[in-house]
Amino acid sequence: MTNDPIAELVALLARLPGVGERTATRYAHFVLGEDRALAAALAQSLGTLHDRVRACERCGNWSTESVCRICGDPRRDGQQLCVVARVPDLVALERHGSFRGRYHVLHALLAPLDGMGPERIDLKRLLQRVRDEAVQEVVLATPLSVEGEATALYVAEGLKDAGIKVSRLASGLPHGGELEYADPITLGRAFDHRRPV
Amino acid sequence: MTNDPIAELVALLARLPGVGERTATRYAHFVLGEDRALAAALAQSLGTLHDRVRACERCGNWSTESVCRICGDPRRDGQQLCVVARVPDLVALERHGSFRGRYHVLHALLAPLDGMGPERIDLKRLLQRVRDEAVQEVVLATPLSVEGEATALYVAEGLKDAGIKVSRLASGLPHGGELEYADPITLGRAFDHRRPV
Repeated sequence: MTNDPIAELVALLARLPGVGERTATRYAHFVLGEDRALAAALAQSLGTLHDRVRACERCGNWSTESVCRICGDPRRDGQQLCVVARVPDLVALERHGSFRGRYHVLHALLAPLDGMGPERIDLKRLLQRVRDEAVQEVVLATPLSVEGEATALYVAEGLKDAGIKVSRLASGLPHGGELEYADPITLGRAFDHRRPV
Repeated sequence: MTNDPIAELVALLARLPGVGERTATRYAHFVLGEDRALAAALAQSLGTLHDRVRACERCGNWSTESVCRICGDPRRDGQQLCVVARVPDLVALERHGSFRGRYHVLHALLAPLDGMGPERIDLKRLLQRVRDEAVQEVVLATPLSVEGEATALYVAEGLKDAGIKVSRLASGLPHGGELEYADPITLGRAFDHRRPV
């Protein structure tokens, strides 16, 4: 706590992703003057967030119960397991709605330069699940970034002896993608992974 | 409180200016997973904000004391009073640093269509200050918008009999402004308020 509560709040808000000092100042003055009730409501919501939300003990998805809505849904296909890095990736896939299996959230990506080595990926938990739940296919849905690819490779390697199908999200040009504006890596992958028509 | 703490937090964050559901979701997941300490720090800061920050009893500026830093500074020129609509406008003028007088924050603008009629502007308090502090000039620094102009007009009318100088921020083309891209109102004002050279 500093002597300047506004400067303190601005500094905290500026830690949010994509928020600079200007935007943080705008938010702070908004809760100071224009929507005063919002400050208390946000304080209450943020202050109790981690007590009310925990990681699902099976898949790591955020949940208010010990087992999340997806893991507890008997209509989901337990033979397919989709591995994601973070919960927002799971949310994006659920919004799309075509995957009917279950998820496994790593809550991490390999990034050795940032000190995120293999010890941050809990392979044992994943292998245990594959065995316990008689999983037949693992879809590696980590990002198509360097970190995501390294993580997918590491997890695939760990699953090698499990005797199950392991697949990776397709890489290529996005829908509507112009060749002219594609970066070289994307274009190279789209070419290498070309499909017969 | 709903049964879904994340949806609740997202809905609250989406009340911040310029924040849609996508950005709010991004903020919520950031404090859930990536910067967990930020949730508690923000809760603490937001929860105590209105207890620690109040309106300066003289000018209305936010302050931790009953009288703000500017009103309490004997080096400021008490003969000049700059009337602003909101504290961020005062902050912008202070950043510029050329005004050495004191401020008067209305915390409101006339906007009859939104139910903000003249009763929301505390003219009496301003007139009292002008008398008590022997103010010689009031600079009307409300925005150059319709609401800001209406408010400036209303305050100027109220100060008519005070026998002091009342001025308004200049209106015209901004620095670097191209005539070609200026809106008609700005261009009209720049022409009407042309200055002798």
